[in-house]
Amino acid sequence: MTPMAKVFDYAEIVKHNTAESCWVILYGNVYDVTDFISDHPGGSKVILQLAGTDATEEYDPIHPPGILEQTLKPEAKLGTINPDTLPSTGKSPAETSGAVDGPVDLESLLNLNEIEEVATKQISQKAWAYYFSASDDLTSKTFNNTVYRQIVLRPRVFVDCVKCDTSTSFLGHNVKLPLYVSPAAMARLAHPDGEWGIAQACAQYGAMQLISQNASMTPEQIVADAKEEQVFGWQLYVQTERAKSEAALARLKKLPAIKFVCLTLDAPVPGKREHDERAKNIASNLPVRSAVQEGGSTSKTDTDAKTPAPKAMGVGQSLFWGTAADLTWDRTLPWLKKHTDLPIVLKGVQTHEDAYLASLHAPHIKAIILSNHGGRALDTAPPAIHTLLEIRKYCPEVFDRIEVWVDGGIKRGTDIVKALCLGARGVGIGRAALFGLGAGGKEGVARVLEILKAETETCMRLLGVERVDELGMQHINARAVEREIYDGPAALERPSPWSKAKAKL
Amino acid sequence: MTPMAKVFDYAEIVKHNTAESCWVILYGNVYDVTDFISDHPGGSKVILQLAGTDATEEYDPIHPPGILEQTLKPEAKLGTINPDTLPSTGKSPAETSGAVDGPVDLESLLNLNEIEEVATKQISQKAWAYYFSASDDLTSKTFNNTVYRQIVLRPRVFVDCVKCDTSTSFLGHNVKLPLYVSPAAMARLAHPDGEWGIAQACAQYGAMQLISQNASMTPEQIVADAKEEQVFGWQLYVQTERAKSEAALARLKKLPAIKFVCLTLDAPVPGKREHDERAKNIASNLPVRSAVQEGGSTSKTDTDAKTPAPKAMGVGQSLFWGTAADLTWDRTLPWLKKHTDLPIVLKGVQTHEDAYLASLHAPHIKAIILSNHGGRALDTAPPAIHTLLEIRKYCPEVFDRIEVWVDGGIKRGTDIVKALCLGARGVGIGRAALFGLGAGGKEGVARVLEILKAETETCMRLLGVERVDELGMQHINARAVEREIYDGPAALERPSPWSKAKAKL
Amino acid sequence: MTPMAKVFDYAEIVKHNTAESCWVILYGNVYDVTDFISDHPGGSKVILQLAGTDATEEYDPIHPPGILEQTLKPEAKLGTINPDTLPSTGKSPAETSGAVDGPVDLESLLNLNEIEEVATKQISQKAWAYYFSASDDLTSKTFNNTVYRQIVLRPRVFVDCVKCDTSTSFLGHNVKLPLYVSPAAMARLAHPDGEWGIAQACAQYGAMQLISQNASMTPEQIVADAKEEQVFGWQLYVQTERAKSEAALARLKKLPAIKFVCLTLDAPVPGKREHDERAKNIASNLPVRSAVQEGGSTSKTDTDAKTPAPKAMGVGQSLFWGTAADLTWDRTLPWLKKHTDLPIVLKGVQTHEDAYLASLHAPHIKAIILSNHGGRALDTAPPAIHTLLEIRKYCPEVFDRIEVWVDGGIKRGTDIVKALCLGARGVGIGRAALFGLGAGGKEGVARVLEILKAETETCMRLLGVERVDELGMQHINARAVEREIYDGPAALERPSPWSKAKAKL
Amino acid sequence: MTPMAKVFDYAEIVKHNTAESCWVILYGNVYDVTDFISDHPGGSKVILQLAGTDATEEYDPIHPPGILEQTLKPEAKLGTINPDTLPSTGKSPAETSGAVDGPVDLESLLNLNEIEEVATKQISQKAWAYYFSASDDLTSKTFNNTVYRQIVLRPRVFVDCVKCDTSTSFLGHNVKLPLYVSPAAMARLAHPDGEWGIAQACAQYGAMQLISQNASMTPEQIVADAKEEQVFGWQLYVQTERAKSEAALARLKKLPAIKFVCLTLDAPVPGKREHDERAKNIASNLPVRSAVQEGGSTSKTDTDAKTPAPKAMGVGQSLFWGTAADLTWDRTLPWLKKHTDLPIVLKGVQTHEDAYLASLHAPHIKAIILSNHGGRALDTAPPAIHTLLEIRKYCPEVFDRIEVWVDGGIKRGTDIVKALCLGARGVGIGRAALFGLGAGGKEGVARVLEILKAETETCMRLLGVERVDELGMQHINARAVEREIYDGPAALERPSPWSKAKAKL
Repeated sequence: MTPMAKVFDYAEIVKHNTAESCWVILYGNVYDVTDFISDHPGGSKVILQLAGTDATEEYDPIHPPGILEQTLKPEAKLGTINPDTLPSTGKSPAETSGAVDGPVDLESLLNLNEIEEVATKQISQKAWAYYFSASDDLTSKTFNNTVYRQIVLRPRVFVDCVKCDTSTSFLGHNVKLPLYVSPAAMARLAHPDGEWGIAQACAQYGAMQLISQNASMTPEQIVADAKEEQVFGWQLYVQTERAKSEAALARLKKLPAIKFVCLTLDAPVPGKREHDERAKNIASNLPVRSAVQEGGSTSKTDTDAKTPAPKAMGVGQSLFWGTAADLTWDRTLPWLKKHTDLPIVLKGVQTHEDAYLASLHAPHIKAIILSNHGGRALDTAPPAIHTLLEIRKYCPEVFDRIEVWVDGGIKRGTDIVKALCLGARGVGIGRAALFGLGAGGKEGVARVLEILKAETETCMRLLGVERVDELGMQHINARAVEREIYDGPAALERPSPWSKAKAKL
Repeated sequence: MTPMAKVFDYAEIVKHNTAESCWVILYGNVYDVTDFISDHPGGSKVILQLAGTDATEEYDPIHPPGILEQTLKPEAKLGTINPDTLPSTGKSPAETSGAVDGPVDLESLLNLNEIEEVATKQISQKAWAYYFSASDDLTSKTFNNTVYRQIVLRPRVFVDCVKCDTSTSFLGHNVKLPLYVSPAAMARLAHPDGEWGIAQACAQYGAMQLISQNASMTPEQIVADAKEEQVFGWQLYVQTERAKSEAALARLKKLPAIKFVCLTLDAPVPGKREHDERAKNIASNLPVRSAVQEGGSTSKTDTDAKTPAPKAMGVGQSLFWGTAADLTWDRTLPWLKKHTDLPIVLKGVQTHEDAYLASLHAPHIKAIILSNHGGRALDTAPPAIHTLLEIRKYCPEVFDRIEVWVDGGIKRGTDIVKALCLGARGVGIGRAALFGLGAGGKEGVARVLEILKAETETCMRLLGVERVDELGMQHINARAVEREIYDGPAALERPSPWSKAKAKL
Repeated sequence: MTPMAKVFDYAEIVKHNTAESCWVILYGNVYDVTDFISDHPGGSKVILQLAGTDATEEYDPIHPPGILEQTLKPEAKLGTINPDTLPSTGKSPAETSGAVDGPVDLESLLNLNEIEEVATKQISQKAWAYYFSASDDLTSKTFNNTVYRQIVLRPRVFVDCVKCDTSTSFLGHNVKLPLYVSPAAMARLAHPDGEWGIAQACAQYGAMQLISQNASMTPEQIVADAKEEQVFGWQLYVQTERAKSEAALARLKKLPAIKFVCLTLDAPVPGKREHDERAKNIASNLPVRSAVQEGGSTSKTDTDAKTPAPKAMGVGQSLFWGTAADLTWDRTLPWLKKHTDLPIVLKGVQTHEDAYLASLHAPHIKAIILSNHGGRALDTAPPAIHTLLEIRKYCPEVFDRIEVWVDGGIKRGTDIVKALCLGARGVGIGRAALFGLGAGGKEGVARVLEILKAETETCMRLLGVERVDELGMQHINARAVEREIYDGPAALERPSPWSKAKAKL
Repeated sequence: MTPMAKVFDYAEIVKHNTAESCWVILYGNVYDVTDFISDHPGGSKVILQLAGTDATEEYDPIHPPGILEQTLKPEAKLGTINPDTLPSTGKSPAETSGAVDGPVDLESLLNLNEIEEVATKQISQKAWAYYFSASDDLTSKTFNNTVYRQIVLRPRVFVDCVKCDTSTSFLGHNVKLPLYVSPAAMARLAHPDGEWGIAQACAQYGAMQLISQNASMTPEQIVADAKEEQVFGWQLYVQTERAKSEAALARLKKLPAIKFVCLTLDAPVPGKREHDERAKNIASNLPVRSAVQEGGSTSKTDTDAKTPAPKAMGVGQSLFWGTAADLTWDRTLPWLKKHTDLPIVLKGVQTHEDAYLASLHAPHIKAIILSNHGGRALDTAPPAIHTLLEIRKYCPEVFDRIEVWVDGGIKRGTDIVKALCLGARGVGIGRAALFGLGAGGKEGVARVLEILKAETETCMRLLGVERVDELGMQHINARAVEREIYDGPAALERPSPWSKAKAKL
């Protein structure tokens, strides 16, 4: 924002409301976005609807800071708006995304479901749809949670359970909880505290935080008030234009709070999140247009689709724009090594085969996250617990070589404990943190962590366990899940027991 | 329609409204159907209700073109109607079966369920009942779909998924999708575009189409505007009067677009589709009469029932009239070879035993379709996925000898991919195409194919697979289904573990 | 009814409405039942409520003819009522138990569920409760039906299915259907046609009928119009007073239509049917009193309860009165042989052990009926299909020695076919026949048989089977049920795999 | 209550309604509780709300008699209230907790569900919440019951079932039912008859009773009118201040009716019972504050939380206050031996490992109770039936050394019989007794026992079993549960079948 910028009256802006001349106000600045209309990942219609107005409220919570400068040419910024000329009905984003029914008594919310319920009422329909949505029929999203209900705990009695210590470490960094906040995007959709608020809550409870590449705040903003001992990771979606990713990695070097890069692999192309696609529509009062389009494609290098004209999409689709689909073990990891010294955590492993392959890249790869992207990528993909059991069954040496983290479906302290019993180093929560934010800003996230910590401690005590490293397979009965997991591709190779029957035909 | 036909006024027609003298108007012609009343497969009441009126609207969508000429003697055609004398309230079929709530925005429909929902509102109760219905308690129809939900996908990561190619071939003919439209009958019940409209959509997406013998358009009409590379099959229900079937086979010789004959075996007698039977009733405002009748029978050669007097039936029952129930491997296949040079596809295989037997008839038989007729024949019959797994287990050599196609229950791209992983060459959709037609004519069918193509591509990419022939058992966990499939008839032959217990009695 | 009986005016009767002098009118006769009040199995209150009135309407449908004469001393009959003096509001039983909403179009009822639905509206609350009820939580009743849904059929194709023959034989007697009506009690509660009406329908369809000892008509009445080839069995609940049972067996000698005695074993004490107990209450407008009473007991020889004072009970409890609980293999069978030459069918076998024991008594015992009494005796008892599979697994020789019939839960022709595939000779229907009666008298029962016959034929044809004796294990996939059945009492005897773990403690 | 106490007028009391001077009336006495406010386990707010009033109605049903004297210093009692000065609206506890809709006809209640339904209407919201609540999502509470539905009974026929004897013994003491009332707390919340009423009902039916340490009446009161042959146990929650527990044990020596000490182990820390926490809130019209608090802790010796300031809690949390979490096999059992000669019953065993360990301490330990605390401690803990099957599988010798009792989920006589078949000596009911009390005081509890006795007898008779010691594994099919139980911690140690697959990667 240059000091010598020209100052406009609102009356001038409103005249430029067409595809031929399209101006918008953003954060008090006036931009001419006419040339950009056809390049907008979210489609041209959305922009044209806001042409000639103050678009800040719409724009703010879904665009990461800095993207404006990256996207528009400097000359697009025409000047600033005279605030006195703005119509009086304009609300700040904070005013609209805040509480609706008076302040929430967070302590009266006893579990994560109740927090989600309150947040659902508080946040916008668009935000809810983006957070809630998962691919297709939500099969994997649901399964992520119910798989924990299939596991029975085995409490031991007559054990001194006065002491209980939930602390552990991730990649050698001490944390107070075996819990981290997953790199969920767009936190400011829920509350102005955004990802910074999550960081505040994590500091309070000693939890780790992974920062989404699609965060609605810059990494610098998020870690601004971090405690000395606080641990962050940064999520990387490799961009088709590699230079952008390289620049991002370079930027991390100035942020010592960020201890590792979390390379996300479970969504090389976006899943089909229908709630999200529908909400887009509701927000804009336009007939929704699915990402599913004839000849539509999400990758510019797609050979089948010469002109992948982006149309209107849900929030998830928009964010995805530009993500590379051509990552491989042998090309991407060396490239990564060249551009960062940070250890790598691979997110999105869903088979024991890939877990095993990752373990072969230790110590460059230091951890994997078993994740189906919260059920948002491929529907009917397995829950992390399945993959964990696969690893235990087929290649347990993985646990010796790298850390194994899991996410998806965590609602209770008992869920956390079960994952740890099965060999997970820690678990991630995504939606829970965002709904906490929606329910009460940073205090809401803190309430989520408070509940999970207390539930985890109660569970450990009732199992007769003092430290998390004592948790093991003897504390759970996972038989109902064990019999569901993959048991090999060999079906076709079995000797046929039908030979006798065939002879009879 | 001879040019010298006599022209009647409507006032004259209305006088012939009794069983003694029964005239009807069809497509502008006037017919005396008095002699035919008792022969009508759909029962005499239906005709008498329409006696002395223009019956076109009722007649049109459920009678294949040409059947009128086949059925009535030439002298039954008395002449033509003077259109100016017709009552003004008469609507054309197109007007009544068309959209109800204004045009549907097809792109706002995100999945096949939403398309079915819209179609259900758009089409007549009779059409809906015919399409929706399945036998008895819909157990198999439901199972056809839910069995896919029991299969878990196994996404691989760090695989370049920029390219994705859904093309494959059926019987050596290239297609762009591993997908075909099943030979579903009576498409014009849903929309005047009918089977021709389906062909248009298939052309657009490179899908194969099987033409029902009970299509509401002639094969010639359906393939009229086909593209050069388009692939069709023609479904044969062998008629008790074999000459009719022979004539039909002869007719195919002039239609090179039709590449094979699909002999339907899974419905030698009609299933009991109660929705369909009930709808018949609703449509005619008469108490419904079930096909289940004392002494009733569906085959003229039935030895137990000397006078199989046909009564009013659902659409399904009517269509079934005349179908032969005496087909056998040794009689029917040689007869078929005599009357057509086209390769044979057997539809309706439901056990590995029959799949194996079919494979012994290669190369005359080139493919089998595992199908329980959309759950419309025998309720509690297995879904195609069961039969596919049986073949894998007991006689995998079948896959080497013939192609194996499956149908039933497909709602998602992931369903298609799962079937391919299990060894299917391709999958058929029936109701989905018809509901697409109901929701938006040929564009509705195209939307169905567009959705399924996009979902299939997303699934393949997220599995890390570029071409359909790379899909295999390693990409799925079908264990939950594997333990349900048939494991042999040997229960009675097991050695008794009870000998000790018996001694104790 | 002696011709010289005194004739009373109604005004005289109404004076005797107390426990001290209690008169009732039954079928036009006047009885003094004062002495009988305390002996009434149904409790004294019920009688006192009807004291001084015409009790015929209440009495008729739940008391078998002849029981009046058996129960009351001859001098209790005081004379006849002058019908002109009766109040005009008296309705005949037929008037009240008949149709409510006009005549039912039976052909519009397409399956057994629809028939039950109509009957439920037509019959009295008391009748419905008696028929519908089962013990405790209806677990076994429900399971009886759902177990059939767990079995998958295996249709064979390319089989000539023109012919279809459902005939078979029971104990050497030819029947046209592998189906019989179970000895369900109190048919006249549903319709005045009663058990005679069931016999008429059975004659029409060639089905066998078992006559309940608690039938609401005499055996003589029921078989009165039987066809020459019709087959009946007679159900025996052995009475504590054996002489009563001996008299009944003697009476059968004059009824050649009755070919065997069906000794019911599955209800030596009554189950707890709460619907029935509640309905009793509703009918009498008195607080319901459960059969569950401190010190209450249903057997006069019960040593724990010296004064088994019967209180008000449901219909089922009342009927049970007097049934012996002391039957044994070694005492009861010889006694039975002494009193009847008819072959014995044992009803109520629920374990393979008892099936095996029964088979050792062939040929005196010629058949067993696997039955949990329609879920009305012990809740969570196994469905007949379980017992059938147990026999197949542990003692298949039973099938060689005796016939095995099954009942419980039959709703579809496919259910019948599945039972036959598993080795059953035939299946019984109980509630279905009674609901048929309730929906439309004898025509309603005929409709039930018509539907089941047609469904059975369709199923057989689609399996590629012509005769019932061709049905076998190869036509079904019962794996889901097989893994649920009893696998021996040996759990405690297994070698402990825990020895290593114990050592670690 | 000293006779020379000063007498106060109510007008004087109401002035002392602040934290600075806080008086309350309890049972006609006036107390100055100002000093106690901050020590109150239930939080200070609750007291302050009642400051200056007669708190008897609120206080009475949730505080055990005598606790007042234990807690307050003698000088806190200021005198008595002049009853004439009390406001007229005061109700006695009996008036408010009694019947609402007129007297309940207990005999019309046919099963335990109906009794719970009636009790739910009769008792206060707070009482209902305390009784109904279980931890987290009620998974274990629900599972406790449904696991019985998974077990199939195996009725034997042709067995003389005239006699039926439900008597057995616990620890050598004869009882008439294999049933006891679990040590459920706070019975007077349901009805003024309280635990004494339960004792009366147990006397009537010959059932054993375990007295809760948190009973709302003193042990002396409860056993006051016990019959000679009546058997009681007393539940011990060891207190952090051991002297309190030692005093309690000493007190038992004067109560010969109490035959054993039941040491409760399944709740060393309280579970999270959200219904209970919410009800607390409703009762006090204050925002609920969960026991889940940052830094909150339930044990004074907790090293992580220096200042465990108790806040408002549910009834369950309040009762828990002071319970020791540091019990161990080697410290606690010897201590116990020193302070009581009574045999020990361990309550809360949930694994076969702990059952085995307990059996090593026979004969000091004479029985164990398999219990997950009615699902109130750790959610997703196994039902007792799982543990019973584990013991059978891994260490059946336990049954030879000690008695094994079970509780949780009993609703039917068949449930009791199933537990006995699996080796349990008897079963406990908790909520059922309390709901019985709520439905009708001691007669309500008697009705519960009457129903269960009758159902048990019916079940035994229909299984062909005369005495409880004849019940065995041959009477049940528990296969569905057997395959769910823990099968060892060895998953990680299995040889990997994947070696071939790994090679292929």
